[in-house]
Amino acid sequence: MIPRPVEDRLAKLRSFLPTLGVDAVFVSNLVNIRYLTGHSAEDAWLLVTSRKVFYITDFRYYELVSKALKGRAIEVVKFGDSLFGTVIELAVGGKAKVLGFEENHLTYYQFGRLKSFAGNKIKLKGLSGAIEALRAVKAQAELLAIREAIKVNLRGFAFIGKFIKPGISERDILYNFQDFIKQEQVEFAFPPIVASGPNSAYPHARVTERKLRASEPVLLDFGVEKNGYKSDLTRMFFLGKMPDSFKKSLLAIRGAQEAAFQKIRPGVPAKVVDATAREYLEKHGLARYFGHSLGHGVGLDTHEMPRLSTKSGDDLLENMVVTIEPGVYFPGRYGVRLEEMVLITKNGCEVLSGYRDNGSL
Amino acid sequence: MIPRPVEDRLAKLRSFLPTLGVDAVFVSNLVNIRYLTGHSAEDAWLLVTSRKVFYITDFRYYELVSKALKGRAIEVVKFGDSLFGTVIELAVGGKAKVLGFEENHLTYYQFGRLKSFAGNKIKLKGLSGAIEALRAVKAQAELLAIREAIKVNLRGFAFIGKFIKPGISERDILYNFQDFIKQEQVEFAFPPIVASGPNSAYPHARVTERKLRASEPVLLDFGVEKNGYKSDLTRMFFLGKMPDSFKKSLLAIRGAQEAAFQKIRPGVPAKVVDATAREYLEKHGLARYFGHSLGHGVGLDTHEMPRLSTKSGDDLLENMVVTIEPGVYFPGRYGVRLEEMVLITKNGCEVLSGYRDNGSL
Repeated sequence: MIPRPVEDRLAKLRSFLPTLGVDAVFVSNLVNIRYLTGHSAEDAWLLVTSRKVFYITDFRYYELVSKALKGRAIEVVKFGDSLFGTVIELAVGGKAKVLGFEENHLTYYQFGRLKSFAGNKIKLKGLSGAIEALRAVKAQAELLAIREAIKVNLRGFAFIGKFIKPGISERDILYNFQDFIKQEQVEFAFPPIVASGPNSAYPHARVTERKLRASEPVLLDFGVEKNGYKSDLTRMFFLGKMPDSFKKSLLAIRGAQEAAFQKIRPGVPAKVVDATAREYLEKHGLARYFGHSLGHGVGLDTHEMPRLSTKSGDDLLENMVVTIEPGVYFPGRYGVRLEEMVLITKNGCEVLSGYRDNGSL
Repeated sequence: MIPRPVEDRLAKLRSFLPTLGVDAVFVSNLVNIRYLTGHSAEDAWLLVTSRKVFYITDFRYYELVSKALKGRAIEVVKFGDSLFGTVIELAVGGKAKVLGFEENHLTYYQFGRLKSFAGNKIKLKGLSGAIEALRAVKAQAELLAIREAIKVNLRGFAFIGKFIKPGISERDILYNFQDFIKQEQVEFAFPPIVASGPNSAYPHARVTERKLRASEPVLLDFGVEKNGYKSDLTRMFFLGKMPDSFKKSLLAIRGAQEAAFQKIRPGVPAKVVDATAREYLEKHGLARYFGHSLGHGVGLDTHEMPRLSTKSGDDLLENMVVTIEPGVYFPGRYGVRLEEMVLITKNGCEVLSGYRDNGSL
């Protein structure tokens, strides 16, 4: 029998309904809908009750979606006058007493509309990251897709490495990335960061016309989307001989990554891993230049659960995939950031992106 | 003196504060922030009080944004522990009594956070489309940018026209569009629709591997973004001799567009224009195949105010730019849609996209 991972996801969400304190969930986040149905959605909503799943869309998509979901235990519904009226009607019709909604996604206005149709017929309950928590732990098929995206990502850095030399501009490098993406028939996971010299001191620099010069670094933060799954990696190149101050920062960043890898295993709070990297940088007098969080989950979204930050409440679990990306930034001079992707395994972690080529740091 | 349209936008928003019943506005929609500041934003928020404008962002963007907004009457603020705490503190510090927020953009969860910091110190009021209404009426510089995007868009159809022939696939045409976009150094406004034969009966078809055949239509819905401003146009090609049934639909669609153009002038409710096109199709027995709305505003977003639909409450005003895109869809057979962009002028309208070349319908 062919495994049907997508049906498993809906079953898993259903099994959580009692824990969530609801007996139906209204899903408005399109990536969550894609995760639950396997169907990439536009202008769509999902209603999951204890017995049925409704895919709700409008006239424009109805025929197409009905065809795509044919044979699946998902009922495609065309809403008429009001989406929110239709949702409440279907939930109440399914005897739901408490309807969960995604409070991090539904707007204040949409909540007001939903509430006005709900009246006293059904209670509403805001859910925070319920489906995102399911998404954080990857199935084998998802891990394969992520490994594939990382492979392409690493090939991309090798491709770009050949062009890195003084005189070419940040934008030239962006065009090289575009050529690569087209050649591989994949998509960008996000607009790449290409930051040369002092621009590398901006954690989220934009690509400029600035030309690369000798004796300076260039930072490339680049991600790939393949079959819906994303990767997110950062590599640096140095043009010429590294000054000692730069080398010192680079070694500290590598050390902070290594300290984080050592700490990672199932059950460890994500904030402990963040703290471990931060303490390592502190020992080297660099913690105050590290202003962002250590990392984040990657999957259907470039940034997803868990968050590896000072205040994260997430725990690391087996088969999560996260980035480890410490960085230090010296305004007016340069920044140093390296970013790896890591799979949390039964007893520790596997660095999925260790391969380096063509002179990247 | 150099005109400063961006500063005018903030001044205009300020002058509307009393009408909106607020004395400060918390802007969370990134496109609105871009419109008001002229700065393309990521992870940013804007607080507009009666005397000051605060651009609120985090560590990662602070240096970059401070540099970009240097010399402008906009104070860049780095938020620490809580964005929402910072917003309330700044608003209360500026003596605001009622703080407006974007109820179509702020999530239910974010509203809860804002409310918890607001307490009894300041009242919150949901605003619906306040800044979007400003954006709907274009300044001359914006109209120039839109005309420029349309010019490129039309060149794109001419470019594609040369490749349209039986045997090439929808995906091949997509690749041709990608080549064109790269050659012109612009961006897609949205993923293009390339729908051949029966696929054209799906109003929002996805690009497939299907090959074009003789004696069938192909529909191309394609938009360009140049300097932030977008275009959105639909053209069809017919491969071979048109059957009478198709020709009849095509003429009806053109007639419906023409009827809409005749109706457009400042002061006319948008729903009247929608009704005019719908009545024209009704006369030809086709209204029931026209399931979507007639059109929408275009600018920094592909879809923005006003909406031209059956239920729209918007009125047309001078210097709005809207699409007119009636369509009829016959499942299993084909669809016919044409989409033009129209500028609302003092006494009527100007069709901005009338030019046709290389055999498009």
